[in-house]
Amino acid sequence: MTTVATIGERALIERVRARAGTPPDWVTLGIGDDAAVMQPERGTHDVITTDSLIDGVHFRRSWTAPKAIGHKALATNLSDLAAMGASPRGALLSLALPADLPLDDFDAIIDGFVTLGAATGTALIGGNITRTPGPLALDTTAIGAARPRRLLTRRGGRPGDELYVTGTLGAAAAGLAMLEAGAGRSTLAPDELACIARYEEPQARLRSGVIVARTRAARACMDVSDGLADAAAQIAAASRTGVIVEASRVPIDPGVRTWCERTSRDPLELALSGGEDYELLFAVAPRSRRAFLRAASRCRKVPVTLIGRLTSEPGARLQVGDRVQPMRHGFSHFAENG
Amino acid sequence: MTTVATIGERALIERVRARAGTPPDWVTLGIGDDAAVMQPERGTHDVITTDSLIDGVHFRRSWTAPKAIGHKALATNLSDLAAMGASPRGALLSLALPADLPLDDFDAIIDGFVTLGAATGTALIGGNITRTPGPLALDTTAIGAARPRRLLTRRGGRPGDELYVTGTLGAAAAGLAMLEAGAGRSTLAPDELACIARYEEPQARLRSGVIVARTRAARACMDVSDGLADAAAQIAAASRTGVIVEASRVPIDPGVRTWCERTSRDPLELALSGGEDYELLFAVAPRSRRAFLRAASRCRKVPVTLIGRLTSEPGARLQVGDRVQPMRHGFSHFAENG
Repeated sequence: MTTVATIGERALIERVRARAGTPPDWVTLGIGDDAAVMQPERGTHDVITTDSLIDGVHFRRSWTAPKAIGHKALATNLSDLAAMGASPRGALLSLALPADLPLDDFDAIIDGFVTLGAATGTALIGGNITRTPGPLALDTTAIGAARPRRLLTRRGGRPGDELYVTGTLGAAAAGLAMLEAGAGRSTLAPDELACIARYEEPQARLRSGVIVARTRAARACMDVSDGLADAAAQIAAASRTGVIVEASRVPIDPGVRTWCERTSRDPLELALSGGEDYELLFAVAPRSRRAFLRAASRCRKVPVTLIGRLTSEPGARLQVGDRVQPMRHGFSHFAENG
Repeated sequence: MTTVATIGERALIERVRARAGTPPDWVTLGIGDDAAVMQPERGTHDVITTDSLIDGVHFRRSWTAPKAIGHKALATNLSDLAAMGASPRGALLSLALPADLPLDDFDAIIDGFVTLGAATGTALIGGNITRTPGPLALDTTAIGAARPRRLLTRRGGRPGDELYVTGTLGAAAAGLAMLEAGAGRSTLAPDELACIARYEEPQARLRSGVIVARTRAARACMDVSDGLADAAAQIAAASRTGVIVEASRVPIDPGVRTWCERTSRDPLELALSGGEDYELLFAVAPRSRRAFLRAASRCRKVPVTLIGRLTSEPGARLQVGDRVQPMRHGFSHFAENG
């Protein structure tokens, strides 16, 4: 079998360049020199983020198709840009490759990356390739553009702001649980299979982020990468407010309900604590509610749901029926129970 | 012992933020949000590069002080910016941490990174932290600025151009060989110890790159990260020329000669094939020779040496005395003999 070690670093870079295609005009210098060069977009600031995927932590080579790995490496970064209201422009991909990685898998990883790039206007403009004695790892840097007065940050929320979340929650965590349980795909319902797809090939809410940012309809935003409870607590902490989430309003993914019935798990727990949904959480001033809902409605396939509000009382709380309780955090690296 | 797992991801990010200090004015948004935001410098393009360091491949935790690891993670990227003639502005650091990494080592890695950042005008503006079941890995992205008409690339060389290299060669490879041989530091001569320092804490030739680029004194440039033979062959390939290097002119580091005498190795081999020197290789039109040497002389501590020329005849050759022979390549990832 041909592996990445068989053909060597330079040939791998050439394969990436061939797959990346012709760069757009504003790429002064693309793949193949010491660095990439791009012309900034007039009137905008550079929005830059980096995120990594490691085999055994963020995906498993034994479960996950190589193309999905490449897709996810870019999608997680695009989600960060979406949360800032930025439009993606370019990306760099730094690959740490075990010597025995099949060349076909390498090609498929790049294909997954550049296919999502093409769909979102994100040009692959550079990167790095190295061998590793450890697990396959992908470090992506994504660069977007946003007008400085249109930026969405975590810190702009105020007490009384309403919290809205895009899409449905818990799906990625349920999908991961299905894979971990070794659930045969033929035994799963369609809405459960959709959860696996959410885990493997997340979709960044780019359009929602950009439209809300451009219309200045939200005061704060972040992406839900480590669970809703975590995101709500973080947006509150950055905004120096508290937060309350109403359990009955949380948009639990239908596949999560199906899977949890089958396995006697708590769907709310997955929706609050499950990571990797990559939805967006917005804090919206009550007087901007109509403008926000109008902006959000321009992304027809991505509904938004009111799930709670920022409070002047500090801390993160969950309202279940008439009871208000402290809200536990979501996923945290380095912690068994974050 | 306190490890990174003891205190968790958020506390680690806070430690990075505290060490990174106050960002410069042009950083619209620094560490702590979904992405970093920076204002481009008027009239310049963004120059962006990424490079990774992995324990066991690019350093060894058992040999290398944590502060040197952090330094090197940034220095290798700054060298890429230097090779483009770009001035560094910002950097993102993506860390993959084994759970047992001591917190003191984490702090020292960050200190090494931000100390070099402060010395070179490179602000740490963002990054990512994740756990890994594999080796410690650092992925750095550095962003610089350069005027588009002042950019240095690999591809601008022409037959007849003279090749100049900064500093001395082979030092980092000799330093690595000393560490691999377990040579006690007390048994080494000062010029040999300097080789270890070159391996552990390389210095990017930022000033040389920027001055030569601004004065348009060179036609092409790249950094010598994988050996002189590799860099010469690559600049020739990108410029669609051949190249000839004169062995007698190669500026072999004094410590390399000392070490090679002691160990019966060939100093020229180390200078040609040894990686990680991070010197700059320039292709200079003969009519620009005086302008180039004048520009280079403004970096007094970094001499330049004429080592060969680009040729119309393709291929990479080495002239040893009166004999001309094919020049073997330098270090390549994934290859025992590149």
